[in-house]
Amino acid sequence: MIRFYNGRTLTLQEDERISTDEVWVEGECISYVGPARADAPAFEREIDLRGDLLLPGFKNAHAHSAMCFARSFADDVPLQEWLFDKIFPMEARLQPEDVYALTRLAILEYLSGGITAAFDMYFHRAAIARAAIDSGFRIVLCGALSAGDDIAVGMDDCARFNALHPLISYFPGIHAEYTSDTKILGEMSELTHAFQKPFFAHNAETAREVAECRERHGCTPTVLFERYGLFDYGGGGFHCVHFTPEDMEIFARRQLWAVTCPASNAKLASGIAPLGEFRRRGIPMAIGTDGASSNNALNMFREMYLAAVLSKLREGDAAEGDAAQILTMACQGSARAMGLGDADSIAPGKRADLVVLDLSAPNMQPEHNIVKNLVYAGSNQNIRLTMVNGRILYEDGEFFVGESAAEIRRRAGEATKRLTQT
Amino acid sequence: MIRFYNGRTLTLQEDERISTDEVWVEGECISYVGPARADAPAFEREIDLRGDLLLPGFKNAHAHSAMCFARSFADDVPLQEWLFDKIFPMEARLQPEDVYALTRLAILEYLSGGITAAFDMYFHRAAIARAAIDSGFRIVLCGALSAGDDIAVGMDDCARFNALHPLISYFPGIHAEYTSDTKILGEMSELTHAFQKPFFAHNAETAREVAECRERHGCTPTVLFERYGLFDYGGGGFHCVHFTPEDMEIFARRQLWAVTCPASNAKLASGIAPLGEFRRRGIPMAIGTDGASSNNALNMFREMYLAAVLSKLREGDAAEGDAAQILTMACQGSARAMGLGDADSIAPGKRADLVVLDLSAPNMQPEHNIVKNLVYAGSNQNIRLTMVNGRILYEDGEFFVGESAAEIRRRAGEATKRLTQT
Repeated sequence: MIRFYNGRTLTLQEDERISTDEVWVEGECISYVGPARADAPAFEREIDLRGDLLLPGFKNAHAHSAMCFARSFADDVPLQEWLFDKIFPMEARLQPEDVYALTRLAILEYLSGGITAAFDMYFHRAAIARAAIDSGFRIVLCGALSAGDDIAVGMDDCARFNALHPLISYFPGIHAEYTSDTKILGEMSELTHAFQKPFFAHNAETAREVAECRERHGCTPTVLFERYGLFDYGGGGFHCVHFTPEDMEIFARRQLWAVTCPASNAKLASGIAPLGEFRRRGIPMAIGTDGASSNNALNMFREMYLAAVLSKLREGDAAEGDAAQILTMACQGSARAMGLGDADSIAPGKRADLVVLDLSAPNMQPEHNIVKNLVYAGSNQNIRLTMVNGRILYEDGEFFVGESAAEIRRRAGEATKRLTQT
Repeated sequence: MIRFYNGRTLTLQEDERISTDEVWVEGECISYVGPARADAPAFEREIDLRGDLLLPGFKNAHAHSAMCFARSFADDVPLQEWLFDKIFPMEARLQPEDVYALTRLAILEYLSGGITAAFDMYFHRAAIARAAIDSGFRIVLCGALSAGDDIAVGMDDCARFNALHPLISYFPGIHAEYTSDTKILGEMSELTHAFQKPFFAHNAETAREVAECRERHGCTPTVLFERYGLFDYGGGGFHCVHFTPEDMEIFARRQLWAVTCPASNAKLASGIAPLGEFRRRGIPMAIGTDGASSNNALNMFREMYLAAVLSKLREGDAAEGDAAQILTMACQGSARAMGLGDADSIAPGKRADLVVLDLSAPNMQPEHNIVKNLVYAGSNQNIRLTMVNGRILYEDGEFFVGESAAEIRRRAGEATKRLTQT
């Protein structure tokens, strides 16, 4: 059993209040949250927080982890050109071992920034799962079927990955409307109904995507997906930048997750998602980094800051984009969007997916409002420790992921070389 | 003499090319940049860069360092309300010892993020200078006269601080048009002409500021300052968000520095500065954090990222906001704006204001383009070492500023308590 004591705890159980409760972890789960106890058992390890903050880990609700191979490779071009001319040709060369090596590199970046789980939509899902399991990291795979793909693969993945390992799960999805056709949409509808699972896809990331969908189908991607019954068991969309009132009505009524990716949307000049409007309509929100090839980092502090300040800019109102709501989105909303309700807060029985944040760092001082400090001033630099499923995977700059960071870097470098050489 | 070797060097001497040159520092200055030499002298210390990157430090071209006392204290309100209702009443209580204690805290934050100098506009300038000297940090003081202030103070400051210490210098300035009157503007004109010095002020930070200036004077702040001859020896403006074509014409013709503060402008919903337009017109640009009370961090990686992506969003063009230009702005443009041309690059004779950046960190891999990695994916986490004027002030998470970080934190905490208690 591991004991965290002598610090502050943000449980996100009911609100954003911070207590001085200590937290015990037994195996994969949290076993106790409360004041120090005289009848405490013997601990395997006691971690003195020295006043620092324990909080639920950040969950990255939209990722293409292995795309770190293309970080800073093809920047400064708009999304469609970037994707079709630069990225797709390199991705055609991807082998499972590449995805394994690159996902392991991305997991290091996640851990060093307090991210404890990722919702990963990418090729060679078995390799992604293996990278997560070997690292001790939590990944929810997202289906990414496109026109021409065999629906049997989706069926098989959904059954297989949801039974594979406690760190792995799977939600059905298609890549996007613009890479789909009516056949795969219809088959995907069969799949979600057969498994009674939520459905996810890239949705309204660019104005062009929505315009072209209208040309093809006479409606937006959201309306199209709804027409096919894809949201009958819930789900959501990645990006959700160019939403119409009708799209929002569907997301609000069905309580679908709008997963915002502010850094990627800004960097590709795709636009600013209407988070204020989502909030007023009661649409549940989550937050993700997208891939390192468009972002270019996998950094939840940056995403949180951008979600806040871009909302303020979009609405011309400094009061929009509340820090507490955004922190809750990153730690809890994203968890729930990914089906990780058992890792969404700190309470007995919840998964021990935890982060320790250094509150003595100069950028966290003074402590008028710790949550605002975290969202408005926090940085990866402040992450002291990251625990996933009860195991410490990152502490004081060191990784504990079953293999050295140098070896992971070397292997990812080799994969990158092969993919990007022309 | 200190030797940096076995890494990469970005000198910013002519362009953004990166070499494997090593760098020697003798006393306060760089003494050699080039390949390893057989006739090398005995070194006091040899720093193995292990492949990491040596580059000129970031210069923060707009700061109110001591305002960290109000970090996360009065967020989520627009600028004018935030300033007049929340900040000004607290500032009225500031004593020199408070400013000293708080500036020392801000300097820790600067150093941990690779910032080697700040252009600091705040009260109790002697205390700011003392905090900088005691820490070994470089500060350029900016005058901040307002209506009712005695111009003799500005005259005295300009003479005194420019002769005080190699780490300290001073440029004349007023706080802003909206806190000035015709008397102080006229007197400031006398001052800049007497000393032949550039002139700085907050300028066009909000639309309201410009509108109210038009009501009072029938012109924008830039036109008003120009009318008073304040720019006859150069200078620039802080923020420059709501610039008219005429303002830009004046800034371009006189080569005045537009100092952008993207995080603060976004967080207060003031707007996005037209950096693309400035670039096309050849207006020189620098970058600053503003105070921690509005930003809320003093983090140049965040400012660089925002300068890039907000430009892309503003122009709806992913190609706008070039990474190399923005890095040059942070390391070199800001230095030149602050009169620190002797600390703007890595070359023999230049001041040794240097940073070592960890290129092996997961967010800096792979290395398709190191400059883009730095601007689009970099974080304070990547700063291994910060050197100011030949002295290492920060290395591997530890500060060497003549006093412990804990003591600096404690003293800043006491000052904060006094200022914010009502």
